[in-house]
Amino acid sequence: MASETQPAEAPRTPPIVAFTLGDPNGIGPEVALKCLSDTRIRELADPVLIGSAAVVRAHAHALGLDNLDIWPVTDPSFEVAPTRLKIIDSAPGKGASVDFGKETAEAGQQAFQAVRVAVSLAMEGRVDAIVTGPISKKAISLAGYGFAGHTDYLVERTEPGAHIMMMVADDLRVGLLTAHVPLAEVARVVTKDAVVAGVNTIDASLRQDFGIERGRIAVLGLNPHAGERGVLGREESGAIIPAIRYCSKGGIMAFGPFPADGFFGSRAFRGYDAILAMYHDQGLIPFKTLAFNEGVNFTAGLPIVRTSCDHGTAFDIAGRNRADEQSTRQALYLALDVVRQRRYADNSL
Amino acid sequence: MASETQPAEAPRTPPIVAFTLGDPNGIGPEVALKCLSDTRIRELADPVLIGSAAVVRAHAHALGLDNLDIWPVTDPSFEVAPTRLKIIDSAPGKGASVDFGKETAEAGQQAFQAVRVAVSLAMEGRVDAIVTGPISKKAISLAGYGFAGHTDYLVERTEPGAHIMMMVADDLRVGLLTAHVPLAEVARVVTKDAVVAGVNTIDASLRQDFGIERGRIAVLGLNPHAGERGVLGREESGAIIPAIRYCSKGGIMAFGPFPADGFFGSRAFRGYDAILAMYHDQGLIPFKTLAFNEGVNFTAGLPIVRTSCDHGTAFDIAGRNRADEQSTRQALYLALDVVRQRRYADNSL
Repeated sequence: MASETQPAEAPRTPPIVAFTLGDPNGIGPEVALKCLSDTRIRELADPVLIGSAAVVRAHAHALGLDNLDIWPVTDPSFEVAPTRLKIIDSAPGKGASVDFGKETAEAGQQAFQAVRVAVSLAMEGRVDAIVTGPISKKAISLAGYGFAGHTDYLVERTEPGAHIMMMVADDLRVGLLTAHVPLAEVARVVTKDAVVAGVNTIDASLRQDFGIERGRIAVLGLNPHAGERGVLGREESGAIIPAIRYCSKGGIMAFGPFPADGFFGSRAFRGYDAILAMYHDQGLIPFKTLAFNEGVNFTAGLPIVRTSCDHGTAFDIAGRNRADEQSTRQALYLALDVVRQRRYADNSL
Repeated sequence: MASETQPAEAPRTPPIVAFTLGDPNGIGPEVALKCLSDTRIRELADPVLIGSAAVVRAHAHALGLDNLDIWPVTDPSFEVAPTRLKIIDSAPGKGASVDFGKETAEAGQQAFQAVRVAVSLAMEGRVDAIVTGPISKKAISLAGYGFAGHTDYLVERTEPGAHIMMMVADDLRVGLLTAHVPLAEVARVVTKDAVVAGVNTIDASLRQDFGIERGRIAVLGLNPHAGERGVLGREESGAIIPAIRYCSKGGIMAFGPFPADGFFGSRAFRGYDAILAMYHDQGLIPFKTLAFNEGVNFTAGLPIVRTSCDHGTAFDIAGRNRADEQSTRQALYLALDVVRQRRYADNSL
């Protein structure tokens, strides 16, 4: 018989969450430190930084956190006291190399290296989730890497069937059919197959990651007024509407296409569990207008759990103790929710 | 010497404002009637409806306004009692022909005819401003007309040097470089010359229509992250940045290009008198998310004054007394403000 001190269910250890620092010269290390210096977080998560310990110390100094007990480890599951902050040093032996606000090849190299290590740990099951810090695509490019963002790299490493960059804030979930694509190339990527894959990925993620069965998914139009029945563009009639019909026949609750401006303006979005936007600004403009600093970037469709804050490197305020860690905290909470939901789903199979 | 009963300045008669009904089967007649049935409006404006008197009566009946005193006139300046509502019947002798929610060639014909009459009256100086009701591009197209919206037609009729569709709500003014253009065609329209013309038109409108000298104008990027320095698109470096520099050298306070999502999310827009968006949804998604039902559509750069509500025909709620006239009322107020500002500028020349 289970007594009060011996619960029937063994206490689960908190999920191990890797925090990549992002660009050393941006606000990524600052928001990670601000988020994790609240030791109450340790009741929920077992965090481990991934990046350069020297960079963390430089940022801690700029924030007046010189007493922060940075604790280098090689095993992310190594247990440390709540007053200590674990780090896997992905640039051992390197100097501090922090030059606030500058985009350099070395910074890009460091930012990339941390992501590489974190993804390996996640793929090996040694961390339960990754919260990525903001990187500079320019710096990454200067360092000689050709990827357009975290998501592209994660997809390359984890080989998912399909994936969607999804922004999340409470019940508002906005998936992007295309993300880091020049606007001139967006229309040709909006095909029936792509929209079907996007809706399917969102539907699966709602179930697997958020515990929502048969979620209601709103699909936005590509053109002004969602094409106004062909007068202002043909992608709706040629690709989006057939895709919605195909998904509906398959039992998915997909609706649309909706003209994006009125859909958000009239607050129609409140009636849906997720929204599929056709391109970056179409999804992120309303998302950030509605939920700035509370939003989380989640990559749906990956085998691993990865979230991120919804802002960039903010080089203009780097090193000035002005960055708001709220979005990073939300990214951690969402990662924990998804880990919990996936564990629950696995156990109930 | 001026006595109290004889002011030094003769009282100005209120501006004559033409209200086109919009599509007879949409909510256009309803919002016009709701706005104008408040007789206090008459202290500010001398309104005249343009459209079919039979259609107005059908809508008045649906709204329970059977006692409304519709007064057909041929001269818009004809004086009527405040309890009476003037109408210039642009479809005389026609039956009611109202079929709520339907898109028909006849409705498109009527909607277009009202706009045609209103523009003629404005060009002749017989009305001071036009507030247009929402039309259906599909119905207009069924009626055999090839124009993509009010603005296109107004431009054709009035031959302005350049023009911009601008959405206005209090201090938020969002101009659209391209409006009713399929998304696939937007990028090729974003040239240096087009951006220069757009900034100039907005600058002139701020001065002439809003009384703002040297207004601060924010220009948005076209691509995700405003192209991220060429990594995500080249229109910023090839067209938008050179245009901003050119305008700045000419003494215009133009800034940018700004990534659109962060610009609205961070509320950076509050520091500018106007914003130039590159395409329809980029400007209208944030505008409507921030100011739904309060927004006004204003065509900057026209010789005549034209405003409009920020919503469409809303066929799904037509004839049910559910439409909100707030945006139409704001459209009237803005039209009056612009008329007043232009009169003031003319007098101070």
